[in-house]
Amino acid sequence: MSDFLKNEFCATEINQQVLNQRAYNQRWAELPDGTIPLTAADPDFPVPGPIYESLMEYLQGGYLSYGPPAGLPEFREAAANRFSLRDGTELSADRIVAIDSAASGMVALARVYLDVGDEMLIFDPVDFLFSHGAEKAGAKTARFKLSANGEIDWDAFESLISPRTKMIGVCQPHNPLGRNLTKSELQRILELAQKYDLWILADEIWSDIVFRPGRHISMLSIEGAAERTLLLQGTSKSFGLAGARIGFVALPDAQHVADFLERSGAVYTSLGASTLSQIAAIAAWDRCSQWLAGFVDHLQLQRDFACDRLKGLAGVSISKPDATFVLFPDISNTGWTAEALSDHLKHQAKVAVVPGSERWFGPGAIGHIRLSLATTRDILSEAFDRIESNWPV
Amino acid sequence: MSDFLKNEFCATEINQQVLNQRAYNQRWAELPDGTIPLTAADPDFPVPGPIYESLMEYLQGGYLSYGPPAGLPEFREAAANRFSLRDGTELSADRIVAIDSAASGMVALARVYLDVGDEMLIFDPVDFLFSHGAEKAGAKTARFKLSANGEIDWDAFESLISPRTKMIGVCQPHNPLGRNLTKSELQRILELAQKYDLWILADEIWSDIVFRPGRHISMLSIEGAAERTLLLQGTSKSFGLAGARIGFVALPDAQHVADFLERSGAVYTSLGASTLSQIAAIAAWDRCSQWLAGFVDHLQLQRDFACDRLKGLAGVSISKPDATFVLFPDISNTGWTAEALSDHLKHQAKVAVVPGSERWFGPGAIGHIRLSLATTRDILSEAFDRIESNWPV
Repeated sequence: MSDFLKNEFCATEINQQVLNQRAYNQRWAELPDGTIPLTAADPDFPVPGPIYESLMEYLQGGYLSYGPPAGLPEFREAAANRFSLRDGTELSADRIVAIDSAASGMVALARVYLDVGDEMLIFDPVDFLFSHGAEKAGAKTARFKLSANGEIDWDAFESLISPRTKMIGVCQPHNPLGRNLTKSELQRILELAQKYDLWILADEIWSDIVFRPGRHISMLSIEGAAERTLLLQGTSKSFGLAGARIGFVALPDAQHVADFLERSGAVYTSLGASTLSQIAAIAAWDRCSQWLAGFVDHLQLQRDFACDRLKGLAGVSISKPDATFVLFPDISNTGWTAEALSDHLKHQAKVAVVPGSERWFGPGAIGHIRLSLATTRDILSEAFDRIESNWPV
Repeated sequence: MSDFLKNEFCATEINQQVLNQRAYNQRWAELPDGTIPLTAADPDFPVPGPIYESLMEYLQGGYLSYGPPAGLPEFREAAANRFSLRDGTELSADRIVAIDSAASGMVALARVYLDVGDEMLIFDPVDFLFSHGAEKAGAKTARFKLSANGEIDWDAFESLISPRTKMIGVCQPHNPLGRNLTKSELQRILELAQKYDLWILADEIWSDIVFRPGRHISMLSIEGAAERTLLLQGTSKSFGLAGARIGFVALPDAQHVADFLERSGAVYTSLGASTLSQIAAIAAWDRCSQWLAGFVDHLQLQRDFACDRLKGLAGVSISKPDATFVLFPDISNTGWTAEALSDHLKHQAKVAVVPGSERWFGPGAIGHIRLSLATTRDILSEAFDRIESNWPV
């Protein structure tokens, strides 16, 4: 297996015993013994060694005092450096706010930038956090149906913009379709945002997981986008830091940061991110690029393997994703609902998947299931053996 | 000095260099070199050794996967055990929800338990987080003026309850007055809550810092209170964990926990607490009682010392607090406003204090300043030497 699995605090590839204790969110710690979770998008691999080392070193200092509302200066610098370099943008530290997970940031941004009754235009299907954020802000969503392969009908997209629309939500790369929007698609979204004076909420939490020969295209890299883009980043997908709850929000300028800190509660300490978790994120961005490259290589092989196995199942169609470590096969031709099929697989095959229910991904998810690939080849292979043996069609 | 200062990762009492880098929130890292901060209630002492040890051990496991929405089972158990034992209550683990700071919990509770237009009855002065929480929920506050020594006029208190009142906010012990409400006062509050069917939001974040011969009396220890009490606890005051952002909310029963998890966003991961920070809190509660006893002993001596020094200043009156490591002297007889006096002390004495402004503590705070005592005797003594030499009256 790949070298990335070898790091100094994990002698074996994965530590099943620790996963059984620590991996929640529909994973090892919550499922019956022996069930394989291909559920929450959280890697089965331990966090990279440099993160562990940085945390140990920081703890030696002995203090966990209050951090600043926008995050530690070194966190903001590390975020700005890493993402501007990677994405070819001019993101500066004074535009960054540390946040306790992209999920929390989604709600905070929606609350600050949307009023009750406003609308957010989002894709369908898409990760539930967009509609969750809108709901918490008292806003509504309009959903544009996105197909895995198809062209976007921009007239239809534009027709969903109403006088109440204040924001377009973009998941780039897209969860659960695993699709990397093209530069021209992002430009088109920006043009509409400019035409109707809308915010763009760009959730780029999956941006580290883009497969060769593709590369991530950040909304911030599109000329003219920075002044109306609210960027969300996190560390849970790329570095296994979901439990540490750490990401950031990037805003158009320092004045927007000041307003956000005031209005979100960060100035009052009611919103903020653990300083320890910030230290973990700095190490992830500054010291784990080699680890990450190995991880993405492994995931690309997992994707190819899993797509081949899925194609062998009756009634399943899947298009190979460009990005993310989730697959979202269409299972509607099996004649089973996603919920019933997921239940069947959980009980008969002892493999847990996420049904593409409206609650989690919108109505466009109906007839799909979602599978995570961020595990070892052995486990993924065993999961597909079981699925095949118990496939009900 | 006390033994508690000697722990395995801090050779000296305090580490000035690290404080200068890490202590934000109007403290060392934010003030001009040489200025002594008696500002934010955050200790100058490093976190207790067992917390450091537990974190190191946890990190060896190598995983920081998603935790459960209510917090790690071991966190909920540790919280329930420690607080029920200490307070003589029957707090069970299924009533606990881990939260990323008491401040965040205050807002989450207000949002879940108050509707737009509702009222929260709070004391005046009191920590700003009560009104901040109410404001975030779209609710209003009614303020009952509380004097440092005086009796509570219960008729006047009751007269502030209107048909829109849904909650009474209690800070026990009280920040910034340092006052420990008596059992009969808590009973009286409960009777009114029962009479008008109100929630009691009990912020007991200061409950570890109660001076001999007093002891903390939890609202949950009052018979009949549990079913209408929303309890807030944190670790920032007692263990120096402000940067880790970890506390908990205790609710009347498991059904209320389920509702809170759903409505607060915790089920959707948009609210939650770092698992690393939860590990720190477990160590604080399970393994740091001796450290804490030494810390409180030290603070009691600091309180006596500081009250004596304050009494020597013209125009100052102070009553000795029962609890907390903040003092809230009345400086109105100096003829100076709190803001002007704080500015003067900051620039002339190079000592930073918090002015008792309406914004932070309510109108009842006007004419007061707040000083934190959680530093060494040497630093506190030096601060008072400077204040004395530069006292403007």
